[in-house]
Amino acid sequence: MLQEIAEQPAALRATIEGERAKVARLGKFLRGRGIDLIVLVARGSSDNASLFGRYLLEIKTGVPVSLSAPSVHTLYQARLDLRRALVVGVSQSGEGEDINRVLENARACGAYTVGITNEPNSAMVSLVDETLLTHGGRERSVAATKTFTGQMLLFYLLADALAEDDGAKVDYAAIPDWAGRALELKSAVAEMIERYVFMENCVVVGRGLMYANAYEFALKLMETCYVVAERFSSADFLHGPLAMVERHFPVILFAPPGVTRDSTRALVERLRELRADTLAITDDAALAHAATRSLLMPAGLDEFLAPIPYIIPAQLFAALLADCKGLNPDAPRSLSKVTRTL
Amino acid sequence: MLQEIAEQPAALRATIEGERAKVARLGKFLRGRGIDLIVLVARGSSDNASLFGRYLLEIKTGVPVSLSAPSVHTLYQARLDLRRALVVGVSQSGEGEDINRVLENARACGAYTVGITNEPNSAMVSLVDETLLTHGGRERSVAATKTFTGQMLLFYLLADALAEDDGAKVDYAAIPDWAGRALELKSAVAEMIERYVFMENCVVVGRGLMYANAYEFALKLMETCYVVAERFSSADFLHGPLAMVERHFPVILFAPPGVTRDSTRALVERLRELRADTLAITDDAALAHAATRSLLMPAGLDEFLAPIPYIIPAQLFAALLADCKGLNPDAPRSLSKVTRTL
Repeated sequence: MLQEIAEQPAALRATIEGERAKVARLGKFLRGRGIDLIVLVARGSSDNASLFGRYLLEIKTGVPVSLSAPSVHTLYQARLDLRRALVVGVSQSGEGEDINRVLENARACGAYTVGITNEPNSAMVSLVDETLLTHGGRERSVAATKTFTGQMLLFYLLADALAEDDGAKVDYAAIPDWAGRALELKSAVAEMIERYVFMENCVVVGRGLMYANAYEFALKLMETCYVVAERFSSADFLHGPLAMVERHFPVILFAPPGVTRDSTRALVERLRELRADTLAITDDAALAHAATRSLLMPAGLDEFLAPIPYIIPAQLFAALLADCKGLNPDAPRSLSKVTRTL
Repeated sequence: MLQEIAEQPAALRATIEGERAKVARLGKFLRGRGIDLIVLVARGSSDNASLFGRYLLEIKTGVPVSLSAPSVHTLYQARLDLRRALVVGVSQSGEGEDINRVLENARACGAYTVGITNEPNSAMVSLVDETLLTHGGRERSVAATKTFTGQMLLFYLLADALAEDDGAKVDYAAIPDWAGRALELKSAVAEMIERYVFMENCVVVGRGLMYANAYEFALKLMETCYVVAERFSSADFLHGPLAMVERHFPVILFAPPGVTRDSTRALVERLRELRADTLAITDDAALAHAATRSLLMPAGLDEFLAPIPYIIPAQLFAALLADCKGLNPDAPRSLSKVTRTL
């Protein structure tokens, strides 16, 4: 897992290199066809990447996005009207049976279908109208890292290709370098990690473009460290779950630059009053100071470029915490790399 | 909270009585207008009711549904193309500022807007094209119960009014009586509740039409009992979080009749192998027997009518557990009835 985390800058560069031209052609074709709705279909880490894609696509293209409920298709066998929809399936292995069934059903319902996968010879590839690949080689750890950020990156390419307005473009080509700089946090994570060895449960908070990172960090903590990790947006957290917080309750917060910062800062202050134990992943020195502990990200990162670099210290945290606890993050108990559900 | 739980059959009857004709007219109008997409906007328990609405509406009407990400509108100020969308805001108080901002923005983007609320004089009512009300009087407990099931019921009325096909109708008029029968489980819940006094964390599982109940039960456990309660579909649970489960780990499962039963039964058996501590809310005697503990629901309930009756033992469980722990479920620490977030 640590090795695959370190491979991410190179994998991201390879994905841009390998897919940019294809995605640009796809975007042009889809703009001509007319797309009223984008549906994203995935499970696990791929579903978390899709949650990021949802925010980015809605904000940058203005097309409404729905995160699919697979059982609507696979168990209830509903037929949705998807004639003006783009349906994107996301699966590292391309072998998720439920995801593939939804893609088949969506195509039968009139949708144009795209598959995002790391496996060019997978079942998914033969089902969809177009495939986008994450590059950077096979992922061996059960805990997804380089395929997760690769999937996120493909949503940047897709949003860029679908957006009509040149003002809306995001300079995603800078992301691999920022990811490289985020890897430099490894020693800071290693220095603090023993503190968390006995953490049994926690809450991870992120908002907007960073909401998916809260889901992904929590999933990594659950699957590699066996920590009962909840995930919320800072707004949802205030609608009930805040009641759980007592002295020393651990809350991890993504606090990137941008429009979500004020609400995150307010939450850190509220948690300080409640004497919670907070860990902020942030580039803001004042916010870091208000938290119990912090991981200081490099300054100057645009909010639209932040999600991939900000997940990297979280991946390092999970991998190093698992190691500290004597667990093997590459092979969590009860799991295998390809999960078959329907 | 216990009193408001008990009021639900009467409140549900009053909501059917008070809103049926209005929703039928609305459905006819919307079918004439043409709706390609339904967007649901809510937070907290209202968001859980919307999660149920999402499944019911997609399955029964064939119109794709998206659960809105409020910050896309409020913080990123995106303009989505919603000219053929129905946007439904759900808020007990009708005063959720972020929900109301999304409704305003959606209307400006061309959507037809509907508000579902318990407060006919709220800010939401003055913003939307049409209002649907939950009946049954003011809700005084911070923990929503009768407004939650009232909101669910209004989604039945809406799905019924929007569905073109008569074969797709659900006999929702039977729900209040089934809710009354579910209340009879109170003594069974009371008998087992002391067993859970020291439960610090747990996972709640539900799938398809019952997925929202997993969210709602978990939220109730978090806000009234301060239990760190995760929520998953049985399929998502297998994609990572299953690794957390060790001997005695508590997992609560909704196991209603219908298409989700096979996957729930398989999960109960898998959890039995892992020696987890399972509690099944089910009408299936064999499945109840395979679980560590069970709450046996009345038999003969159609899967489409099950979600409201099945949440009732969960509400009773949360209220009685809070009482056992010496907590006041009507006024959880750190919360107030109207949560203001943006």
